Amino acid sequence: MKADWIAVDWGTSRLRAVAMGPEGILAEAQSDDGAGRLAPDGFEPALLRLIAPWLGPGVTPVLACGMVGSPEGWHEVACRTTPCAPLDPDALVTVPVRDARISVQIVPGLKQLRPADVMQGEETRIAGALALHPGFDGAICLPGTHSRWCQISAGEVVSFQTFLTGEMFALLSEQSVLRHGLAEGWDDSAFDAGVAEGMARPDRLMAQLFRIRAEGLIAGLPGPAARARLSGLFIGAELAAARAWWLGLPVLLVGPDRLTALYSRALAAQAVNARSLSATGCTLAGLARAAGALSKAAR
Amino acid sequence: MKADWIAVDWGTSRLRAVAMGPEGILAEAQSDDGAGRLAPDGFEPALLRLIAPWLGPGVTPVLACGMVGSPEGWHEVACRTTPCAPLDPDALVTVPVRDARISVQIVPGLKQLRPADVMQGEETRIAGALALHPGFDGAICLPGTHSRWCQISAGEVVSFQTFLTGEMFALLSEQSVLRHGLAEGWDDSAFDAGVAEGMARPDRLMAQLFRIRAEGLIAGLPGPAARARLSGLFIGAELAAARAWWLGLPVLLVGPDRLTALYSRALAAQAVNARSLSATGCTLAGLARAAGALSKAAR
Repeated sequence: MKADWIAVDWGTSRLRAVAMGPEGILAEAQSDDGAGRLAPDGFEPALLRLIAPWLGPGVTPVLACGMVGSPEGWHEVACRTTPCAPLDPDALVTVPVRDARISVQIVPGLKQLRPADVMQGEETRIAGALALHPGFDGAICLPGTHSRWCQISAGEVVSFQTFLTGEMFALLSEQSVLRHGLAEGWDDSAFDAGVAEGMARPDRLMAQLFRIRAEGLIAGLPGPAARARLSGLFIGAELAAARAWWLGLPVLLVGPDRLTALYSRALAAQAVNARSLSATGCTLAGLARAAGALSKAAR
Repeated sequence: MKADWIAVDWGTSRLRAVAMGPEGILAEAQSDDGAGRLAPDGFEPALLRLIAPWLGPGVTPVLACGMVGSPEGWHEVACRTTPCAPLDPDALVTVPVRDARISVQIVPGLKQLRPADVMQGEETRIAGALALHPGFDGAICLPGTHSRWCQISAGEVVSFQTFLTGEMFALLSEQSVLRHGLAEGWDDSAFDAGVAEGMARPDRLMAQLFRIRAEGLIAGLPGPAARARLSGLFIGAELAAARAWWLGLPVLLVGPDRLTALYSRALAAQAVNARSLSATGCTLAGLARAAGALSKAAR
């Protein structure tokens, strides 16, 4: 089996590769060799460990997106400046490699000058979402460790805003004093109450957090309800701060199913009917679009 | 040297003891035997390691406050319910001990039923602040890992509110993606700008945080300025959410000098002239007030 080209999503903690043939996906593989765990000279060997079985005679093109192009990645790639199309096949950056069997290109991230913001990897998912929904105008939200809200118009990312929502939830639920009152499990109504509270009074977020611990101590708030409410509070506060992005506009959610389901539920309470797309599918669709343009240019 | 009585501030990470004589402080000692690091049967030995040199013939009273009385402490002590005086000498709880040379009593924390809240240790500092400023009516703010704003009237804690400010700053500055852009050092004007931004738009806190990282990446925001701005943002958001506590009222700040200086600066920008007291001094004054009442009752 020989791949026509290879799609790579190289995040901070995971490396994912997909072998692509004329009919689509031939094989998939992943490893823990995230960009955050490798020294610059560790990237090429880590990639080859994963994709060597898919290489044949001749040169196989590899298209990569994500933190691999950050200052702490394999090869720093300058971000493109918004407003712009999420992905420009002419702007891919070639990485010097030692192994003659591969050529590697990285998709540049996007930056916004005022207010300052950056993304790296999401631009490819946005390109994929637009490839799957041609002509989409509105908001694309990409929930995750860092959640991003993007204003899309005429195929361009007009503006965007990053939120630390996922990272704050992880830090507070695993390491702060709140952890003593949380437990695995879930409670939809506690999540809904948290979203409502976070959306109604985002200016009181700092005051709402400790109350979860206090209610556990003196009012018996169960651990799963406490955890769902904390998640709801953060998502509600994010939706309040991101209101200008989604109010009255079509919304696409691109992310892991678990997260898009939560955001979809929170938005539904605001009468916003968001459509959800898988992050993996959008990444592949974005890279495939770039690969298609490259192969057309090569013909 | 024999102590008349011993004052103990037993927090999560530190144990501090002061030997008191007829004229005041005779000696001080502290150790890392915080309440968070000891099993229930480890408390009495940890205390004796520190205070044994101060014990003579007869029984020496020990008065303790802080997490020592929490469910994870030496001996769980039920909280008193606000509104109430911060410290009631008749409500101290005696801990059973093995060593006949000491008697140990713990100051109960306070709880508020609606909205749910708790404090343990701060009640003693509030009692001390009121002993140092008899008749004070207004707001007492106790900044720290968890910051607490308390409404004081006629010698009672009428209501209070806990904020996770210190803990969130520590988690985000040391462990989140923001840490890459922060550095030791300080920048007063960046702190002031953070406070102003946090106070003006507390509802956008979730959106303001990542901007610090982005400005570091694409606009060269220096590490010390980024750190000061993050601190300012959190303190500003806290002051906004706590506005009902301090607006138009006298304010006492009780805490470590480093923190009361920051809060004092932030409040001054709102034309609030807060007075600062040392946390250590207030704890001792609070315990001394309880000890005085006990010794009067014993005569």
